[in-house]
Amino acid sequence: MRTASAGPEIERLITLLAKLPGLGPRSARRAALHLLGKRDAVMRPLADALADAADKIRACSTCGNLDVTDPCAVCAAPNRAEKEICVVETVGDLWALERAGAFKGRYHVLGGVLSALDGVRPDDLNIAKLIERASDEAVTEIVLALNATVDGQTTAHYLADKLEPCGVSVTSLARGVPVGGELDYLDDGTLAAAFRSRSAV
Amino acid sequence: MRTASAGPEIERLITLLAKLPGLGPRSARRAALHLLGKRDAVMRPLADALADAADKIRACSTCGNLDVTDPCAVCAAPNRAEKEICVVETVGDLWALERAGAFKGRYHVLGGVLSALDGVRPDDLNIAKLIERASDEAVTEIVLALNATVDGQTTAHYLADKLEPCGVSVTSLARGVPVGGELDYLDDGTLAAAFRSRSAV
Repeated sequence: MRTASAGPEIERLITLLAKLPGLGPRSARRAALHLLGKRDAVMRPLADALADAADKIRACSTCGNLDVTDPCAVCAAPNRAEKEICVVETVGDLWALERAGAFKGRYHVLGGVLSALDGVRPDDLNIAKLIERASDEAVTEIVLALNATVDGQTTAHYLADKLEPCGVSVTSLARGVPVGGELDYLDDGTLAAAFRSRSAV
Repeated sequence: MRTASAGPEIERLITLLAKLPGLGPRSARRAALHLLGKRDAVMRPLADALADAADKIRACSTCGNLDVTDPCAVCAAPNRAEKEICVVETVGDLWALERAGAFKGRYHVLGGVLSALDGVRPDDLNIAKLIERASDEAVTEIVLALNATVDGQTTAHYLADKLEPCGVSVTSLARGVPVGGELDYLDDGTLAAAFRSRSAV
C-alpha cells in the first residue's frame, strides 16, 4: 500500500487504519485525510479514547464480557435474574441482545464456537467456567443464544451434553420467520423450522 | 447508538470510530471489539499514530500537500520539474497521481472545487497562491487534474481564465476510454469525448 509523497507518519497511520475490519487501503487513506481535517474534533479524542480503552477495559472474570470493572456491570447488577444465564459466542452478540432488551438475566461469553476447520477445541472456549456457573444451585436455566450456523449448532449440542449433569434446563432461541420477513425470500431450512414450531393463533 | 452494558469508555470509542468515513454504528462496534482483541498489535500503536500525526502533520504553505515538513517532500525534492504544476482538488488526488507515478513535477492542492450548491467560492480555495506560483518565470505549464464532474470542470474553466494573464500553457487530463474499459458499459459523454480525441494508431 504505497501512498508515496505522504511521509512515514501518514503511511503508518494509514497502515494501522487499514487493519480495522471494514476499512481497506483506499478507505483507510480517506479516513486518514478525514481525520487530519478534524484534528481537534475527532482525531485527538479518538487517540485518547483508544489509549484509554486499551488501558482500562478488561474481560469480566465471571462471564467474559468487556468492561472497566470486574465483575462487569451486567454481572454486578442487583436487578438482573441470577437464575438465568444466556450463552453467547461474542461480546458483540451480548451487545445485540442488550440492545434488543430481550433478556434480563446474566450472560456468558464463550469467545467463539467449536470449529474443526479453524481448529477451535472445547479447551479454547470459556466452557469450564460455564459448567462451574451452571452447577450453582441458584441457576435454573441456560439459554443457548448461539448463531444458527453449523459451528454454532455443533457447539450448542456439545454444551447441552456437558450441561446435562448440572441439573439445569438448557434451552435455545426459537427458529422461525424473522419479524418483517417475507416467506418467498426465506431459505428452506428456516421455513421448515417455522412450520415445525407453529403455534396456535 | 445505544450499545448498553458496554461502559462509557467503549461507548465513547464506538461513537468516535463511527465518525470515520466508511464506518457506520455497526461496523464501529465491530472495529472496537476487534481493536480490544489486538491491543498491543493495533490499538495502542493506532492511538500513538493518531496523536503523532495530529501533532506533526501540517499543510505545505507552498502547495497545500500534507507532510511533517514545510515545504513538503514534493516541493523540496530537487529532482522534480519546477516548470510544471499539477493542480488537484484534494491531497487524496495528489496521492493517487503519485501512486500512478504519472507526473514528475510539482503539485498544487486547491482544497476543493467551486460549487454554487455547497457555497464554495473562489476565495475559499487555494487559488491566489496558484496564480502567484504560475506567475513565476520558471513555470511553463499548469496541468489541471480536476475531477471530471460538473463542479470540477467549472473550476477548471475558471482557473484557465484566471491563469491566462500569467503566460503559462494550461492543459487538462485527457478524456477517453479507461484502460480495461468496455465500450458497452461506458457512458455517452465518455464515448463522445473518446471519439472526438481519437488518434492515429
